[in-house]
Amino acid sequence: MALLVQKYGGTSVANIEHIEHVAQRIINTKNEGYDVVVVVSAMGGETDRLIRLAEDLHDNPHPRELAALLATGEQVSVALLCMALHKHGFKARSYTGWQAGIITDDSFKKARIQKVQTETISEALNEGNIVVVAGFQGVDSNGNITTLGRGGSDTTAVALAAALNAHECQIYTDVEGVFTADPRIVSEAKLLKHITFEEMLELASLGAKVLQIRAVEFAGKFQIPLRVASTFSDCPGTLVTYEEKIKGKVMEQPKVSGIAFNRNEARLTLLGVPDRLGIAGIILGPVSEANVDVDMIIQNDSADGTIDFTFTVNREDFNKANEILKKLATELDARDVVTDNKIAKISLVGVGMRSHPGIATKMFTTLGNEGIGIKMISTSEIKISVVIDEKYTELGVRALHAAFRLEQGPTEEFDPEG
Amino acid sequence: MALLVQKYGGTSVANIEHIEHVAQRIINTKNEGYDVVVVVSAMGGETDRLIRLAEDLHDNPHPRELAALLATGEQVSVALLCMALHKHGFKARSYTGWQAGIITDDSFKKARIQKVQTETISEALNEGNIVVVAGFQGVDSNGNITTLGRGGSDTTAVALAAALNAHECQIYTDVEGVFTADPRIVSEAKLLKHITFEEMLELASLGAKVLQIRAVEFAGKFQIPLRVASTFSDCPGTLVTYEEKIKGKVMEQPKVSGIAFNRNEARLTLLGVPDRLGIAGIILGPVSEANVDVDMIIQNDSADGTIDFTFTVNREDFNKANEILKKLATELDARDVVTDNKIAKISLVGVGMRSHPGIATKMFTTLGNEGIGIKMISTSEIKISVVIDEKYTELGVRALHAAFRLEQGPTEEFDPEG
Repeated sequence: MALLVQKYGGTSVANIEHIEHVAQRIINTKNEGYDVVVVVSAMGGETDRLIRLAEDLHDNPHPRELAALLATGEQVSVALLCMALHKHGFKARSYTGWQAGIITDDSFKKARIQKVQTETISEALNEGNIVVVAGFQGVDSNGNITTLGRGGSDTTAVALAAALNAHECQIYTDVEGVFTADPRIVSEAKLLKHITFEEMLELASLGAKVLQIRAVEFAGKFQIPLRVASTFSDCPGTLVTYEEKIKGKVMEQPKVSGIAFNRNEARLTLLGVPDRLGIAGIILGPVSEANVDVDMIIQNDSADGTIDFTFTVNREDFNKANEILKKLATELDARDVVTDNKIAKISLVGVGMRSHPGIATKMFTTLGNEGIGIKMISTSEIKISVVIDEKYTELGVRALHAAFRLEQGPTEEFDPEG
Repeated sequence: MALLVQKYGGTSVANIEHIEHVAQRIINTKNEGYDVVVVVSAMGGETDRLIRLAEDLHDNPHPRELAALLATGEQVSVALLCMALHKHGFKARSYTGWQAGIITDDSFKKARIQKVQTETISEALNEGNIVVVAGFQGVDSNGNITTLGRGGSDTTAVALAAALNAHECQIYTDVEGVFTADPRIVSEAKLLKHITFEEMLELASLGAKVLQIRAVEFAGKFQIPLRVASTFSDCPGTLVTYEEKIKGKVMEQPKVSGIAFNRNEARLTLLGVPDRLGIAGIILGPVSEANVDVDMIIQNDSADGTIDFTFTVNREDFNKANEILKKLATELDARDVVTDNKIAKISLVGVGMRSHPGIATKMFTTLGNEGIGIKMISTSEIKISVVIDEKYTELGVRALHAAFRLEQGPTEEFDPEG
């Protein structure tokens, strides 16, 4: 029997009524003849409530204890969802991360899944159960409870889909799917029926927040068909597909699939660092050791034998990164540290863009015509990102959406089945 | 280093302030040079909140899912308590039931502990940690989460004390210890410094509610010194001791240690059952199969070849037992079923009472002088219980407390060390 993995987020199980609604959706799927594995997040608001309790006790709670605390949120959801399924006469069993065999490393707050031991849940499926697994959590090799980091329930779902060789992994959330731009900012934004894995990866990394980036990476590694759809509608949402299926089509002409933005970044520059071999590593070493993720990086040589080194980080890591840079500035005899945490990043995403320089030109021109100055540029195979003043975010997104006529959908839509 | 196991109940960790207070008490113990294993209940009110969520979804939630749901309550407490200990610079690690190696059978709602695998927490103790264990929960041999039933955290504490060979198991609660009678009813009631294991067992079975009976049984089996004291005072509370330590003294003269009562019972009588071999088993079989615990049992022969069979059950099981009896009455051709759920049981408890019939006489006379009729009587080595009209409960307890002069403490106090 074909297996579907369905993931429901916190807003989808925020209260008893929502849990009953989700149960009904799962039952519909089961009645269509599928085996179902369900991954559930904590009830909306519960994780924040637990974090507040922890913060009342300790400014910086130990990660091991915080993980044990937060993991209770999903454990509550899975038990309640099973009860709702039982009420309709369906067999269902709940599993915590450790019970479901989700084995992770021991970085308690952002643990990575190392393997999934599927014996227990495979057996439960064979016995006709709907299997309900607590998202966001696992267990390390020493039996400690770990969490996968915020949004980690997506990763749980994809990992289970991969391990169980699921037909599809469906992420149900409170949005209809992936749009050409955030519909709250661009009212003409259009739902994408399909998106390539690479595009989804870029959108996730750009903070589009529909899917967690690690979940997308995981899905790509195992080529899991991944669907994003709304818990509260019957719209089929957006299906993430893989390059080989569509190669013939997409390379023919460039396609701008969507526009993403991220206001949650900050920029730091170390000015006038005396250049030497490996200087970038010397600067970024202490930053990554402090567990600060770096996004964009720019290094400029200047004629006087010094360099300017600029990078962006998540805004929540700004203070930490700033402290590190100040210390480094002294050690490395740099001239100064300048920072800016009122920036936003806007990105155009689409397969085949890189080989068409006209797209980048059009992007820069469009922004320039609106009076928006560009502070940094970074490009990849399928993405062009610019950093601008935060206050121009909405203006920039709307201007680009109009310039690339995304209200008509992506430049080239395709049918991955055909 | 000597090890203490300390258990703190739900009211002791009901909020952040209480958790910080408990942390301070644990730190004081650690600073006195003890290794400490702490067992914690769910924050006061949390278990009830979770039960309400479950009942909103299902009239009769599946025990496996209910156990998984309720176990989160203690998991939250242990993580928070560790954070409070960390704040003061102490090493502490939290453990759920399965992490602490609490292996139980698979009766999810009232599971019995089969063994405790202490490797993990012994190692944590050796590394200098305060070990904080979630009470009330365990794991069965198939990896399912189980709960020990309400009050089961006491049992967890005693089981750990036994497995780790602790110096003492200390149960901290919201009362000062065991009194000669409930101080809310008898203002002259006196705190007992010591009580024998057998007396404690009777008091627990009588609903004195200071300790769960299974915890007392467990303690007795392994002769664990068990202390009951208040989380919110420095009073040393009541120490439960074992017979051999005090044999020489207690047998010399009878001692009435205390008076307990239980309003939570109901009485059922099957009248005029035709007698036959094994009739008691035939009647009680279906009752115990329905998981109804029976307390007092009386069987009267009558001259006409029929018997009257009377027993008491917890009031919450009254309806269930009544249904069973009505069915049995038809099957067994009994004359009638009569019931009374407005009864109370009052018990005198004290080692050596049985061999002194004067005590029973004094008890019956005292109640009679107050105009209180006795409906049933049951005796054991160290207890005399009577069933009376519920409305006479306070009157009866006070009269007996005065008649046996318990305001001066038990008839014979003793020092178990001397």
